[in-house]
Amino acid sequence: MDLKPTKPLSGFIELLPAQQRCFDYCAARMQNILRLAGFSMLDLPAIERAEVLTDKDNWDEIETQMFLFQKGDTKMGLRYDGTVGLSRYVAGHLNDLTFPFRASQFSKRYRGERAQRGRYREFYQMDLDIMGINSLSTNYDAEIISVIGRALDSVSEFIGPNEVLIGSRPFWDALFDWLEMTQDQKKDVFVLIDKKDKMGDQDFAEGLQDTLNDKTKENLIKSVFTDGYSQFINKSDKLNSAISELTQFAKTLDEIGVKNAKIDLSITRGLAYYTGLVFEFKLINHPELGTAAGGGRYADLAGKFSKTKIIGVGAAIGFSRIFAAMLENDQIDLTRFESPIDVAVLVMGDNNVGYATQITNTLRDNNIATVSYLDTEKKFKNQIEYADKIKSKFSIIIGDDEVKNQQISVKNMSSGEQQSLSVTDAINLIKKAI
Amino acid sequence: MDLKPTKPLSGFIELLPAQQRCFDYCAARMQNILRLAGFSMLDLPAIERAEVLTDKDNWDEIETQMFLFQKGDTKMGLRYDGTVGLSRYVAGHLNDLTFPFRASQFSKRYRGERAQRGRYREFYQMDLDIMGINSLSTNYDAEIISVIGRALDSVSEFIGPNEVLIGSRPFWDALFDWLEMTQDQKKDVFVLIDKKDKMGDQDFAEGLQDTLNDKTKENLIKSVFTDGYSQFINKSDKLNSAISELTQFAKTLDEIGVKNAKIDLSITRGLAYYTGLVFEFKLINHPELGTAAGGGRYADLAGKFSKTKIIGVGAAIGFSRIFAAMLENDQIDLTRFESPIDVAVLVMGDNNVGYATQITNTLRDNNIATVSYLDTEKKFKNQIEYADKIKSKFSIIIGDDEVKNQQISVKNMSSGEQQSLSVTDAINLIKKAI
Repeated sequence: MDLKPTKPLSGFIELLPAQQRCFDYCAARMQNILRLAGFSMLDLPAIERAEVLTDKDNWDEIETQMFLFQKGDTKMGLRYDGTVGLSRYVAGHLNDLTFPFRASQFSKRYRGERAQRGRYREFYQMDLDIMGINSLSTNYDAEIISVIGRALDSVSEFIGPNEVLIGSRPFWDALFDWLEMTQDQKKDVFVLIDKKDKMGDQDFAEGLQDTLNDKTKENLIKSVFTDGYSQFINKSDKLNSAISELTQFAKTLDEIGVKNAKIDLSITRGLAYYTGLVFEFKLINHPELGTAAGGGRYADLAGKFSKTKIIGVGAAIGFSRIFAAMLENDQIDLTRFESPIDVAVLVMGDNNVGYATQITNTLRDNNIATVSYLDTEKKFKNQIEYADKIKSKFSIIIGDDEVKNQQISVKNMSSGEQQSLSVTDAINLIKKAI
Repeated sequence: MDLKPTKPLSGFIELLPAQQRCFDYCAARMQNILRLAGFSMLDLPAIERAEVLTDKDNWDEIETQMFLFQKGDTKMGLRYDGTVGLSRYVAGHLNDLTFPFRASQFSKRYRGERAQRGRYREFYQMDLDIMGINSLSTNYDAEIISVIGRALDSVSEFIGPNEVLIGSRPFWDALFDWLEMTQDQKKDVFVLIDKKDKMGDQDFAEGLQDTLNDKTKENLIKSVFTDGYSQFINKSDKLNSAISELTQFAKTLDEIGVKNAKIDLSITRGLAYYTGLVFEFKLINHPELGTAAGGGRYADLAGKFSKTKIIGVGAAIGFSRIFAAMLENDQIDLTRFESPIDVAVLVMGDNNVGYATQITNTLRDNNIATVSYLDTEKKFKNQIEYADKIKSKFSIIIGDDEVKNQQISVKNMSSGEQQSLSVTDAINLIKKAI
């Protein structure tokens, strides 16, 4: 019989144990920051009804990027982000939750596109969202940015420093209105701005010309990226309002201690969802990873599920995009994740398994990570080799003498020092060393 | 526009925040037991190639119980257990892992059957497996049982005590051989034994008669459940070997401190995988939950993926089956999971957001779970109502006076006591109380 393939499907992440420990460690640190900031951890289904995942009109467009399937009469699929499930959940539990409601999800999401180099089809994102009924101060937008910064800072030993770029949907809306652009022009120029960084200045300028064919308008739009947004003050009420929101927001960020933020109106977060301020985090030392986290504000998060107006500000941290990528590229020193075992208990002879297991369990009860080697017929040489290979900090040898004397032989695996001790003394010695 | 449904698909679990905190707390406690016992936490893809999930010959049979789909030319599907991915992973990483290798997975699995009351289509299991190359002492079977017992005991405040029932595949093989049963008879009788508890003694007896039509053989098989297995000693070498394994295993369990085990040869763990000892954990106070955990030994875990013989002993704890079920049925007192917030910071006026956020972040840095109420135009009455609703233990009020005096007003939400304190004194007061 032919052997089946042992590699996972392309686009799917599979880490070795030490890599996984690092991944889990970073997730736990970041989740702790979110928990201390009052976010409730939610764990929603990975499968949703197809009608929840997509509106019928753009079904085809999205279908190519989704895993969809049918059971009985029900069409369903795997979620591609955390927002769609969250808005359904919150709309369904309006009376069970207290608003503003802070929610976080750390979960796998799926993109059903064909395999491409460097693109994950299954990946973790860590979402955080704050939702209010009918109103929600932009102070919460600042709070989300502050908390993401703190979460990323909590693992800066691995990923280095970060910065956050702030964009504004309302600014562009107001500018496009003032420039008296048509609906089609607005849409096309917005797409150009969204892709500006990727396409470069020349192509961007040509794109503007193709769309607008009006040198004055083209130059005004280009000037946003060179001369800033303040030049448009007092051009229209809408522009004033958008500019004042941006200015006030920058001031709030500064006051609450977010020092790594700057306004960058090329940040638009694509075409979906957002209606207010938007933002993207970058890792300063890792430009190759692109956007580390991104989010913004929705004026009506759950309009498809509820008549109650739920305003949300939320973001997703590209957890796999950052950590799986860095781990797969060997960009993280894994030394400290390679020796999770404190003690290997080596057992000479089946008749000593009982005593060895009692010792093992006593160590575990004392928060000492302990494995026992229970192929007791194996020679001492093989057993100590095992302790060495798993990089355990200590080994304890249990043979007939140890059982008779109720003493255990404790070896420090790095110094080689070996002592015969009571169990209590052994625990004290080990706890001091680990 | 019609509103979309807010309920998840039937068979999918969705918990409220306090329920989720309890679920996560139990998972973390149990995972800590496994980590201290030296198990490496693995997180494998939820999607596997169809050929990995199933052999071609029984495709149709399993398809009805799987979520399968196709992207490009590749057929794939969602895993239904943790073993299939684990065996692929271990076979693909023989040189990266040290054996005996201890692995644990806490992950979602999927059953694509049609929705049925009380059956989950997405559920968590917590697996633990120990794998050896070419040999693996049955001491490891005892170790797995011991560790599962300790994991379940770590959450006994919620689920009560447990017991474990031990069965043996080799015993039935040996008995069937000695009774000179045909292959078809062996298979059919094994199915009957597997279903014995569900079908009752009468139907079981009739099933045996239909299959064997031999009173002597039928009575001998029935006598296993009334008179035990020792009566078959010295009937054949195979029977002696199976009986001695069981007797020795019971002795080992006793020696290593597993006092809640008993031999019960009606335990067979269905038709798949296992080749040696098998076992099932039951929750004594919750018979309605059925099997809480089950597992056994495989002589050749990864034969489909590798020519290297990997012997495994493993088990899956039905985590959702236990905890999601108990939470959904309100069988767990959630009081202690209902107030995760230590402090609510209430902010009077937008100009105080900066100072309030500094305080908030200082509290969080001191491991105090803190939320800030940032709709600063809301009246004090609304803000304190929020602190009350989220059941925060303290509230801190930040207004103009507090900023001017660099003192904060701290209110104990249960006693109502309110004090004006320096930030340091406030932190000390709160840390003592939480």
